[in-house]
Amino acid sequence: MIKGYTLPRTPLGKSSMVPAPPWHYAGNVLAIEYEADPERASAFLPDGLTLFSSRCAVYFIEWQYASDTGKEYLDPVCSQYKETILLLSAQYKGRPMAYCPFIWVDQDKALMRGLIQGWPKQIGETWITRSCELPSKAAPNTGKGATFGAALSVLGRRQADATVTLQKETPSLPTPTFAGAALLRYFPELRQDRYERPAVHELVQLKSRDVALSTIWEGKSSLNIYDHPYNELYDLRPISVGSGYKFSVALTVDDLAYITPLK
Amino acid sequence: MIKGYTLPRTPLGKSSMVPAPPWHYAGNVLAIEYEADPERASAFLPDGLTLFSSRCAVYFIEWQYASDTGKEYLDPVCSQYKETILLLSAQYKGRPMAYCPFIWVDQDKALMRGLIQGWPKQIGETWITRSCELPSKAAPNTGKGATFGAALSVLGRRQADATVTLQKETPSLPTPTFAGAALLRYFPELRQDRYERPAVHELVQLKSRDVALSTIWEGKSSLNIYDHPYNELYDLRPISVGSGYKFSVALTVDDLAYITPLK
Amino acid sequence: MIKGYTLPRTPLGKSSMVPAPPWHYAGNVLAIEYEADPERASAFLPDGLTLFSSRCAVYFIEWQYASDTGKEYLDPVCSQYKETILLLSAQYKGRPMAYCPFIWVDQDKALMRGLIQGWPKQIGETWITRSCELPSKAAPNTGKGATFGAALSVLGRRQADATVTLQKETPSLPTPTFAGAALLRYFPELRQDRYERPAVHELVQLKSRDVALSTIWEGKSSLNIYDHPYNELYDLRPISVGSGYKFSVALTVDDLAYITPLK
Amino acid sequence: MIKGYTLPRTPLGKSSMVPAPPWHYAGNVLAIEYEADPERASAFLPDGLTLFSSRCAVYFIEWQYASDTGKEYLDPVCSQYKETILLLSAQYKGRPMAYCPFIWVDQDKALMRGLIQGWPKQIGETWITRSCELPSKAAPNTGKGATFGAALSVLGRRQADATVTLQKETPSLPTPTFAGAALLRYFPELRQDRYERPAVHELVQLKSRDVALSTIWEGKSSLNIYDHPYNELYDLRPISVGSGYKFSVALTVDDLAYITPLK
Repeated sequence: MIKGYTLPRTPLGKSSMVPAPPWHYAGNVLAIEYEADPERASAFLPDGLTLFSSRCAVYFIEWQYASDTGKEYLDPVCSQYKETILLLSAQYKGRPMAYCPFIWVDQDKALMRGLIQGWPKQIGETWITRSCELPSKAAPNTGKGATFGAALSVLGRRQADATVTLQKETPSLPTPTFAGAALLRYFPELRQDRYERPAVHELVQLKSRDVALSTIWEGKSSLNIYDHPYNELYDLRPISVGSGYKFSVALTVDDLAYITPLK
Repeated sequence: MIKGYTLPRTPLGKSSMVPAPPWHYAGNVLAIEYEADPERASAFLPDGLTLFSSRCAVYFIEWQYASDTGKEYLDPVCSQYKETILLLSAQYKGRPMAYCPFIWVDQDKALMRGLIQGWPKQIGETWITRSCELPSKAAPNTGKGATFGAALSVLGRRQADATVTLQKETPSLPTPTFAGAALLRYFPELRQDRYERPAVHELVQLKSRDVALSTIWEGKSSLNIYDHPYNELYDLRPISVGSGYKFSVALTVDDLAYITPLK
Repeated sequence: MIKGYTLPRTPLGKSSMVPAPPWHYAGNVLAIEYEADPERASAFLPDGLTLFSSRCAVYFIEWQYASDTGKEYLDPVCSQYKETILLLSAQYKGRPMAYCPFIWVDQDKALMRGLIQGWPKQIGETWITRSCELPSKAAPNTGKGATFGAALSVLGRRQADATVTLQKETPSLPTPTFAGAALLRYFPELRQDRYERPAVHELVQLKSRDVALSTIWEGKSSLNIYDHPYNELYDLRPISVGSGYKFSVALTVDDLAYITPLK
Repeated sequence: MIKGYTLPRTPLGKSSMVPAPPWHYAGNVLAIEYEADPERASAFLPDGLTLFSSRCAVYFIEWQYASDTGKEYLDPVCSQYKETILLLSAQYKGRPMAYCPFIWVDQDKALMRGLIQGWPKQIGETWITRSCELPSKAAPNTGKGATFGAALSVLGRRQADATVTLQKETPSLPTPTFAGAALLRYFPELRQDRYERPAVHELVQLKSRDVALSTIWEGKSSLNIYDHPYNELYDLRPISVGSGYKFSVALTVDDLAYITPLK
């Protein structure tokens, strides 16, 4: 009798790439709001969603993860990963809701937890400036005037980079925000007559609990999205760039809201 | 209307991690047959399969992949990956059939194609000695007396290593062999009441076509599987080690045989 | 006229792997004091140094670096790296001085800056638990009772791991400490008659300035150093383990003290 | 008494990043000849060398390495690496001689052996199409009409890529060729008054022995060198692209010819 929340399923169930939820996360975020071409952005939405506005956001995040045991963060190669998330401003039946067309992480466990939630995760490398509260030319102190950078590379190609210069504290998170985002759970068939009829194809909505936020800093930002021979990320490039943000967040995921099946 | 065989689904469908089949593969293989503890091996089988024998095999493979366009191998960062496969000798209703409890690859695209087929793929690093047909102390020539090595590391821990010293050509592939293997397609639910009721849970059988094989070399081998704090691979460690093999293989995958649903 | 502080030297001198000093660093440190076998430790010292005590220390550090321009930390792939340092307690003419037999970093630029200073740097992967000041099961808050982990892997083999549980603030850095350490600058010859007569072979002493330290936390620790088929790190394994430490440090390097030539 | 050809020097001398020569190499090469802007190329040459012609070559190579023991190739993580070499056509006192302004490898041991020879090695990722002699859409068979690709990425940025379509066998290696190349051995000082007076600064010439070559294939090629925010590689971009080559090579290095000291 083999066990486990994901493959590999084994006699003791200890070998699954990912254990059953709850999944706890703590992360440091650098985010940039920007405007994309609304017609292009609209074309990235699945059935059931329409564009709410041309406002997009890119999030660069360094995460630490643990299950309830907390042991993963003591063996940090099993716990830490970095992520770049792109979000569009969508709506479902008139209700505003972020939607994620692209996301990259640098760890298989994070990729798998993502696929289960409907995040379209691929492997990519994210880099984010770290702050240090000591006086140093090697690191900004978090505070007015400090500048942070971030970058995403996928398969050895620079895909995006950004800077944020902090100006003031703010009570507001960037918009769109990933809490409550709509996602597409999708798992294909391989039998020859079923390539077009996936085993799983449904629109769902993220749920998180025990969300904690640090002070949120807002400031000026720059953002580049680079052209690429295969993917379509460049169609979501910035027309204009808005505010940048820096904050920390902690949250727990152990559930998902069902929206609608798709075909 | 977004398109694509896998996530991310996009307006043009060019951004999917994996395009629709056919998927073409060409690989160089180093394989080792060995005997595991039959009681322990048996415990790794899913419902419907029973142990056929205690014979196992480890395959270390460097693959090159392309879709029908062939373009992936011209941008080889999108095409090449290395893999370690562990196979058990199972049977389904009296019919012998390999079963894969563990497999590691070093590329997200290969991981995703694997999950769709039911391979329980995780990210790991595989290394395999390359032959060279020039006289050199830096590489063995493929032929009698040549020795090749291979190793698997996962998250910075050595998991397995092996050597094979070629002795003679043989018409036989190693046993168990991956063609026709039974695999477990599995995709979890995240809604809180459904952790134990996955969206996809079915026993399937690999299908491949246009299989081509090089000369197969057989010889003596050594194999170590190392203990590990979390996973259960060590329960499948060798009791005794058999023949080793070196060969190349090419094949195409575009279908899957359905065996039975599981719960 | 080509220019540059290191290779590659180019027309504008902008392409050097490393620019001329000053080099600024800001790092988060997890350190463990331990006792090694004194006879074995003594055998690792170069001419001119003798063992001061059997006390050793391992430092796991995540660094951010910048030259005077500060631009490196805005493109953090050029700035960030992680490091594991092993230090012995040596003395030179009766003056206590740390000595570094082994050190690993994960970036070529850090490796080169190290070689120039006499650090015997090799490439390896270091992982360190990150703290987060939000309430979360995914991260410890820095403070009494919090536990942090760290690990080193080299070429896919786990070499060392450790934990530190914080107990109290302390005014003292771990001993031995890397400030003022003795190092061996060494650059070989390749002409056939000169393998044993290196171009550079001298004992030097680290200098740093503008050193800033955070609060230093001390606590209980565990440390494992694992056996390895080639290197001699295992000869410096712990006989007993002492205190662990967590702190941040910033410093600038732009000079070196000369001790003595060696042959 | 510590020993070793390079750092780290240890009691048994088994821990050096690199053992003393001879160093044996076997590699698969994809090379492209091209013309650069002669004025720009000329500016990359060190004192003593002048430009012989505007002909350059890029080599993409997958290497396997061993010392005399041959053990490295049995633990291939210690043996295999991939490399991109750029060569200019220089001359020294009227004698034609290649010169290397840029080179990237993906392994620290290869980087260190390179620095000792005067190769200005940095870490970068090289990818090269592999041939397979089986019929497959996943790999070209070496022969007329087969197309191979290669690419170089450094710190997550694509720096160069190329294709070669084989047309005919040829007795000639690409020009310039790396055998007998002039290189710059360079090791800086860190004492504050000596940044401009390196410890080692000399022009040397590569020596190799026991060179073996496979059949050499020549054909049509394409080559892109991409712009970059920091390095000066783009100044050596192709004005026009010539022939491409595919072959294997084995050689041994255990000596170096001295040309002249520089300052």
